[in-house]
Amino acid sequence: MPKTTTIAVDVRFGDCDPAGIVFYPNFQRWMDASSLAFFQQCGVPPWRELEATRGIVGTPLLEIHTRFVTAATYGETLTVETHVEAWKAKVFTQRHRITRGETLICEGTETRAFVFRDNAAGRLRAMPVPDDIRALCE
Amino acid sequence: MPKTTTIAVDVRFGDCDPAGIVFYPNFQRWMDASSLAFFQQCGVPPWRELEATRGIVGTPLLEIHTRFVTAATYGETLTVETHVEAWKAKVFTQRHRITRGETLICEGTETRAFVFRDNAAGRLRAMPVPDDIRALCE
Amino acid sequence: MPKTTTIAVDVRFGDCDPAGIVFYPNFQRWMDASSLAFFQQCGVPPWRELEATRGIVGTPLLEIHTRFVTAATYGETLTVETHVEAWKAKVFTQRHRITRGETLICEGTETRAFVFRDNAAGRLRAMPVPDDIRALCE
Amino acid sequence: MPKTTTIAVDVRFGDCDPAGIVFYPNFQRWMDASSLAFFQQCGVPPWRELEATRGIVGTPLLEIHTRFVTAATYGETLTVETHVEAWKAKVFTQRHRITRGETLICEGTETRAFVFRDNAAGRLRAMPVPDDIRALCE
Repeated sequence: MPKTTTIAVDVRFGDCDPAGIVFYPNFQRWMDASSLAFFQQCGVPPWRELEATRGIVGTPLLEIHTRFVTAATYGETLTVETHVEAWKAKVFTQRHRITRGETLICEGTETRAFVFRDNAAGRLRAMPVPDDIRALCE
Repeated sequence: MPKTTTIAVDVRFGDCDPAGIVFYPNFQRWMDASSLAFFQQCGVPPWRELEATRGIVGTPLLEIHTRFVTAATYGETLTVETHVEAWKAKVFTQRHRITRGETLICEGTETRAFVFRDNAAGRLRAMPVPDDIRALCE
Repeated sequence: MPKTTTIAVDVRFGDCDPAGIVFYPNFQRWMDASSLAFFQQCGVPPWRELEATRGIVGTPLLEIHTRFVTAATYGETLTVETHVEAWKAKVFTQRHRITRGETLICEGTETRAFVFRDNAAGRLRAMPVPDDIRALCE
Repeated sequence: MPKTTTIAVDVRFGDCDPAGIVFYPNFQRWMDASSLAFFQQCGVPPWRELEATRGIVGTPLLEIHTRFVTAATYGETLTVETHVEAWKAKVFTQRHRITRGETLICEGTETRAFVFRDNAAGRLRAMPVPDDIRALCE
């Protein structure tokens, strides 16, 4: 069983669109928040600390895929449940399920890579998944 | 050749995250904006008008899939190019390409359905793609 | 002592800008969320219910004033504390204090009016503060 | 006459709330964008360049004050007009007017300070308004 973490999200009026339902990019915001919360809850230090100590800036996205099942609206509390479903040499894939009680709202995957700031090249570069971070998260 | 529309997006400081690059849910915001701009540029009235005249509230998402290729940052102007790549009886799929000049930033699809407000049931319900709207967009 | 309510806010990576601190419009998002939470916690029904039963659409802003004292960043949990500091015939003013533990992050007021949807005029119109809602909130 | 700059903003569906009008923190997002655009249009380099060359990270907010006059909705194009109305030793105040054609939507001020990253102290610190930057903007 892979490690699984959750965060709670209170849906607010301003998260909803003129149809009265959650504006969908907010679901991606919450999956992104849960992606990071997963690492923090597994004991990985915050990116700002990893940037200072190891140059690791974060885990930008390579690919996402989300299926939207049921609408949500303000006043509701949602749960985002996250685990890593695949670790590869250079990338990993997290699966997120957003639910309201027993009801599935949406579900998706994010494929990400760790990046560091290459000061010589002046840009962000992908790096292998650090072994110690992976060990904390399995 | 399907009809293709574009919008321009100025990337702002507040669209970027602590790594200095666009926070990815913003790309979904811009694809959503381009999805609607596509219909408007094809001559479809705004949702608020269609809601008043025909009960059509909008085109919520069923599924998205995006591949992120290159980062973008503030001060840049991006182009979102959109067309419908598949019309089905009840759903349609739009493809969006976000570029900076010749450089592909990200690319993805959104599968959507038209919905109307079912006042009896008190909720939004999917409906077949309206023929007249499809005719404007092909 | 006026009624005072609080909400908790988890600051996320995507709430922060390239300087690594909260992008300030997010503080206004959280004050807006706390404005509504105040009414809900005082026992006022959600706007969608008030719209159906009494045509009340919400409490749009007339004026805001915020003083920013200390920066906040992701990984922190903030508290937004809210009360009404002035009720007038047609408007009311809420005061919000956002703190991290004992530290004041920012503080501000929002002056709002209740509005209803005037279907004849086809637009939103201000209305007197409803007595029953005020009674719940004092 | 102080230098005045403008940006155009296309209001999108996702910028609007369940009442169908712009969710107000978005007006602050656009004022923030216009604040930065003002400096860029006056010839000041982007923050990321000033951070590399002079340690200047940006101009965080000290205080805002906005008056909301008329609602705006999606499909509309707004103009944000910005100038500096007061330069002081350590802070400056920008005034922003958001209009739709001749109609005033909202108007406000932002008081900001330049900050640099104090690596010794490990935090952002205010600094006097740089003379050369002020000279470009008057």
